[in-house]
Amino acid sequence: MSFQNPVFIPGPTNMPESLRRACDMPTLDHRSSLFADILQPARTGVRKILKSESAEVFVFPATGTGGWETAITNTLSPGDTVLAARNGMFSHRWIDMCQRHGLTVQVIDVTWGDGIPADRFEEALRADTGHKIKAVLATHNETATGVVSDIAAVRGAMNAAAHPALLFVDGVSSIASMPFEFDAWGVDVAVTGSQKGFMLPAGLAITGFSPKAMAAVEAGGLPRCFFDIRDMAKTYANNGYPYTPAVGLLNGLKQSCDMLLDEGLTHVFARHARIADGIRAAVSAWGMELCATSPDLHSNSVSAIRTPEGFDATRIVTHAADTYGVAFGVGLGDVAGKVFRIGHLGMLTDVMALSGIATAEMCMADLGLPVTLGSGVAAAQEVYRNTASAIALAAE
Amino acid sequence: MSFQNPVFIPGPTNMPESLRRACDMPTLDHRSSLFADILQPARTGVRKILKSESAEVFVFPATGTGGWETAITNTLSPGDTVLAARNGMFSHRWIDMCQRHGLTVQVIDVTWGDGIPADRFEEALRADTGHKIKAVLATHNETATGVVSDIAAVRGAMNAAAHPALLFVDGVSSIASMPFEFDAWGVDVAVTGSQKGFMLPAGLAITGFSPKAMAAVEAGGLPRCFFDIRDMAKTYANNGYPYTPAVGLLNGLKQSCDMLLDEGLTHVFARHARIADGIRAAVSAWGMELCATSPDLHSNSVSAIRTPEGFDATRIVTHAADTYGVAFGVGLGDVAGKVFRIGHLGMLTDVMALSGIATAEMCMADLGLPVTLGSGVAAAQEVYRNTASAIALAAE
Amino acid sequence: MSFQNPVFIPGPTNMPESLRRACDMPTLDHRSSLFADILQPARTGVRKILKSESAEVFVFPATGTGGWETAITNTLSPGDTVLAARNGMFSHRWIDMCQRHGLTVQVIDVTWGDGIPADRFEEALRADTGHKIKAVLATHNETATGVVSDIAAVRGAMNAAAHPALLFVDGVSSIASMPFEFDAWGVDVAVTGSQKGFMLPAGLAITGFSPKAMAAVEAGGLPRCFFDIRDMAKTYANNGYPYTPAVGLLNGLKQSCDMLLDEGLTHVFARHARIADGIRAAVSAWGMELCATSPDLHSNSVSAIRTPEGFDATRIVTHAADTYGVAFGVGLGDVAGKVFRIGHLGMLTDVMALSGIATAEMCMADLGLPVTLGSGVAAAQEVYRNTASAIALAAE
Amino acid sequence: MSFQNPVFIPGPTNMPESLRRACDMPTLDHRSSLFADILQPARTGVRKILKSESAEVFVFPATGTGGWETAITNTLSPGDTVLAARNGMFSHRWIDMCQRHGLTVQVIDVTWGDGIPADRFEEALRADTGHKIKAVLATHNETATGVVSDIAAVRGAMNAAAHPALLFVDGVSSIASMPFEFDAWGVDVAVTGSQKGFMLPAGLAITGFSPKAMAAVEAGGLPRCFFDIRDMAKTYANNGYPYTPAVGLLNGLKQSCDMLLDEGLTHVFARHARIADGIRAAVSAWGMELCATSPDLHSNSVSAIRTPEGFDATRIVTHAADTYGVAFGVGLGDVAGKVFRIGHLGMLTDVMALSGIATAEMCMADLGLPVTLGSGVAAAQEVYRNTASAIALAAE
Repeated sequence: MSFQNPVFIPGPTNMPESLRRACDMPTLDHRSSLFADILQPARTGVRKILKSESAEVFVFPATGTGGWETAITNTLSPGDTVLAARNGMFSHRWIDMCQRHGLTVQVIDVTWGDGIPADRFEEALRADTGHKIKAVLATHNETATGVVSDIAAVRGAMNAAAHPALLFVDGVSSIASMPFEFDAWGVDVAVTGSQKGFMLPAGLAITGFSPKAMAAVEAGGLPRCFFDIRDMAKTYANNGYPYTPAVGLLNGLKQSCDMLLDEGLTHVFARHARIADGIRAAVSAWGMELCATSPDLHSNSVSAIRTPEGFDATRIVTHAADTYGVAFGVGLGDVAGKVFRIGHLGMLTDVMALSGIATAEMCMADLGLPVTLGSGVAAAQEVYRNTASAIALAAE
Repeated sequence: MSFQNPVFIPGPTNMPESLRRACDMPTLDHRSSLFADILQPARTGVRKILKSESAEVFVFPATGTGGWETAITNTLSPGDTVLAARNGMFSHRWIDMCQRHGLTVQVIDVTWGDGIPADRFEEALRADTGHKIKAVLATHNETATGVVSDIAAVRGAMNAAAHPALLFVDGVSSIASMPFEFDAWGVDVAVTGSQKGFMLPAGLAITGFSPKAMAAVEAGGLPRCFFDIRDMAKTYANNGYPYTPAVGLLNGLKQSCDMLLDEGLTHVFARHARIADGIRAAVSAWGMELCATSPDLHSNSVSAIRTPEGFDATRIVTHAADTYGVAFGVGLGDVAGKVFRIGHLGMLTDVMALSGIATAEMCMADLGLPVTLGSGVAAAQEVYRNTASAIALAAE
Repeated sequence: MSFQNPVFIPGPTNMPESLRRACDMPTLDHRSSLFADILQPARTGVRKILKSESAEVFVFPATGTGGWETAITNTLSPGDTVLAARNGMFSHRWIDMCQRHGLTVQVIDVTWGDGIPADRFEEALRADTGHKIKAVLATHNETATGVVSDIAAVRGAMNAAAHPALLFVDGVSSIASMPFEFDAWGVDVAVTGSQKGFMLPAGLAITGFSPKAMAAVEAGGLPRCFFDIRDMAKTYANNGYPYTPAVGLLNGLKQSCDMLLDEGLTHVFARHARIADGIRAAVSAWGMELCATSPDLHSNSVSAIRTPEGFDATRIVTHAADTYGVAFGVGLGDVAGKVFRIGHLGMLTDVMALSGIATAEMCMADLGLPVTLGSGVAAAQEVYRNTASAIALAAE
Repeated sequence: MSFQNPVFIPGPTNMPESLRRACDMPTLDHRSSLFADILQPARTGVRKILKSESAEVFVFPATGTGGWETAITNTLSPGDTVLAARNGMFSHRWIDMCQRHGLTVQVIDVTWGDGIPADRFEEALRADTGHKIKAVLATHNETATGVVSDIAAVRGAMNAAAHPALLFVDGVSSIASMPFEFDAWGVDVAVTGSQKGFMLPAGLAITGFSPKAMAAVEAGGLPRCFFDIRDMAKTYANNGYPYTPAVGLLNGLKQSCDMLLDEGLTHVFARHARIADGIRAAVSAWGMELCATSPDLHSNSVSAIRTPEGFDATRIVTHAADTYGVAFGVGLGDVAGKVFRIGHLGMLTDVMALSGIATAEMCMADLGLPVTLGSGVAAAQEVYRNTASAIALAAE
């Protein structure tokens, strides 16, 4: 595995040099006044990226999984019911976590490759006349299948059912890469991590809580301590932290937010869409299909590509690593062996994307799949050529 | 605050350049075969540093606080009782965590500055004929007071009482800086973090579980998911991780263990003792006293220094930061305003220690304390001169 | 210009992370004993890479141009005559330097794109019965035209003419990338720089002197001081340096040599040949030609590609930088506007090379050249696929 | 030798982290438009630091020695005479260089420890009625003896003698650390390096040429090519460089100038004076003397400290390195074994300086010199305490 090639896993992403440096800080006394100038801008930056005026942002030295736990343990009480769709490995894991914390999960299973079925959510919520469901869990972007779901529609379903449940959204592989509207969508808790759209190393669980979620914190909660946002809130008020903070990563988060906001979120999202369009054009040129079952579900941060029946898709990933020193993502769970994944989030350039496409082509040809060398590259080149000036203009 | 001066906080420590570089890795696919070569040597290294043959090592992207939570949530059940001494802010916080997780804590309060009273532990354990106490919590080194307790004596008390409780030891500010004997002391769960003796940034909770503790995991446990060692154990077996690992920090941990073991733990501990002796000689030359109430309690990783009655010790810390760009530690909790702390753990040289002593002298003089400039430095120089060759010889 | 894309200039090259770190050293006292452990291994490493048993290696804080000056000012005397071929910008500049130092240069002009004409050298040397020619200058790899010349043939010509002149070889863009045989070819002074095959930043002029050249130093010389190898030799003998050395770059050179020798020079050269083969296959697929006038002249470190008559080749370079953030090389001197150059030396992977080819294709299509998208990529993929295992095997 | 201790050599200095990072750049195409934004601000920054409106700044990938060669080879002609004082190793070496380039040097020898005798310069210049002397060479700060000379007085002597010679000033260890007035002092060529006041690694020769010096370049010159400022001037005009530039170091120079100018040169010089005052107070407390023969000659960038008769001063330097891992400077040439040097230039804090003083004390005591431990530290602490707020105020 060469560190000179880009990685094409759906996170952690290729890190811009400036962000690696922001994280690689000399030791700073986190009880000194210097810490405030890292913590608070990082929190403010995240709030802006969530597109929220009022969210309280809490950042833990953990991962997205820790963020899920933060969401549920701070707001729910033992025995509470939550509603969730299972359409991939990550929604599955969040459901599992809830169950392990003693919550009752009303699971709506859908085919992996489908999005969250807002209509079935609405149905379930309408049926819950006693309001036993305290929270609706939604995985915005299923990293395992490359499926982005319509969170506005989920909120619509909740509103249509006039249901008071909280809305928790896993935006681990969407936030900072694809449009996310905390306030407009009525999100109550948003969860993400440092190693995806923020282009940082793994190690931060990043969460935003709505005023309604904050009220729920006061009212209930599961046993917790490390992930207790009350301790965070209290210490943040004094520019402190309840335990030793990961100062370098927080500094990286501050810089990452600055970088993204300076570029402009509209441009960031357009950039991701453009790179993803090229990948999808290549897949199409190869005569292959995405795991996502319809174009409106296509994720701009990761593409899961179905390989022909009878072919073990994981071989592509292993071969790419062993022969060309390139990392793609394997299929997980229900789609293990059926898809391989190309991650295309973060600061990936068109030029880098082309090298990933070219590598995938070589691997598929090496393994006997009927792919014409250069075909996917040519299709993506066409996309990138035609949009190169547009993206440059948008950057101005 | 200048990044050119050393820090004298009791962690995070001054980081050796080589460890900063080990942490600052380019993105590596944690699902590739490369990850095994980081994860497993890091775990093995920690086990050796714990001085254990059989401990299972689990490393979380969290902090020492997360390590505490790992210890209690994996092994104890709702309503269980634990026995703990409160002799400083960190033992206090662990007790608080237990209570928030619904455990009953039998607290033995002692003066802050005292060590863990093994005799009172023995008494309490003997009285617990029904074995309601499931675990004994011991803070090996109270970072708040600079007090190191005798864990062998705690184990002795447990043995004398023939009590089957588990022994949990917080070694956050002792492990890798002062002698720690996981096997010899019969420790069941040891907890530490990356930012102290391992000289890394904060961000890893490092734990070791004895076979007896592993058996307890099978038998019980509190609701948990992020900190569930069963998920860790299962994925470790395949060189994987239950979620996205903090690869850079784990790589740093691997390198840190190599560095410490190459130096030799005996030498590492002697080096810490030597640096601490110089600090203590300086304190003595200033006519001041340590918070630790007797010499056998003197910590080799941090010294809490009592300032005269009526003087707010925190002013020294603030003044040092504002005027000389140097970070010392403030007093916490019961000893807030009464002590200031000099952290002297990690890869601190004698030369660096002298600059901290000289700075403290200037601060105290600036603030009107009756300290003779150069007096503490001279006392420490005497210590360092007389031991310079010994330490060099020991290094061979 | 994005720092995430590889560069495709013929040096400085893409730097391996480990070499950047080797160069980025903290300050080290160059008069301390630590310096010897950097200087001497670096010199020994260079000697091995030159394939010499007896060369004295001198490394200056300068560039290849400084290396040229070192060669001529240390060995030649005012009024001396040198023989040189001019087949590109860099051979031209060395000739110009000689003239500015008052030397008489007997220039053999050949078409840019041709190699050094050993037969015409032999002719000239035979004609020089009075042995006025004191040195023969040969540019091993003309970076401007992508032409590698046959130095063994030049030596053969000198031997055939039984001429006692010294042989100076500019190996700036060949050494450590293509076979170079200091001893076997009878090279007297070899010159290179840090920023090509050694994959370091610019800033070191690296030279090797044969015993015969060392004798010439004793006998003559032009006025010089900074580039005087006598001062170097004298101070090296005491592990010193005549002025402040560029310690970080020297440390990088030491590491670079270790890296190259650990890989094995045979493999290093095969790797360069393989990458170059892919580039040349792409050029061929585009229906274009190299500046090098015959296949035996094809350089494995840089390819200069002729664009159609009437098309300004420099536009490709400008467009690549502006639109895709990729750096190619422009044509220089006689071939300005007629060629663009793809540098492919150093630690370039096949995957990176493909991204350069893909970018060149997009640029040419954007600018209206009749190039089929994906065609060059496919040709190169074919080369890389078929040789991927061979190179892996060779690496063992 | 520990990289955690500061160095106390008179250059290279301890490097601020931000400057190390500025130098450690990824590869950038130096023929692209990006290079202009590094080269030109670096040149402008240097001009401002030289305090000149009109100086042309040329920066070479070399060292201060290369800067000396640049000064003389660009402006003087074979057989020209120059006037110079020899008062230390560095003035000696520049004289030697002139002689090796065939110039006649009229040397005024003074005791090492003395400054440049402006009166004797005036005498010599008045005597040179034929104006054979084409240049006066002045070493502003003799790094070997810690002596700063009065360049305004040298210019005064030249004016008093109404002599048209050029004035060349070696400001290697003064520029950016002590007041330097290119225009006000009528300097014609100023020479410095990257590794002193600019706090960068060694590797850049930095020169400034007055309009009068530029005119001399047109009129004459010694054989040269690498150091020819005409090539520099021509390529600079197109934002280019005559050969491959050391881009990272130039980027570091740009950042260093920004850092120094942002701080304000007045504050930079006051900071150096304050640190030096502390060092001198310590020397005085030790009962020792500086090599500099009078207080007006005391350098603020380096102090050469005389040790008692019969004691080999070099032992202190060796002992400090071996026993405490600290680098001081040895005595050179006439004062070898008689002095040891403490370098105190660059971004050295008071806290760091105290650690150097404390180390020197330990070494002297270890080696049997009658020094009271803590005495020098106390004297320096007194200086630093009393000036801490003043320097902070000046920084505002």
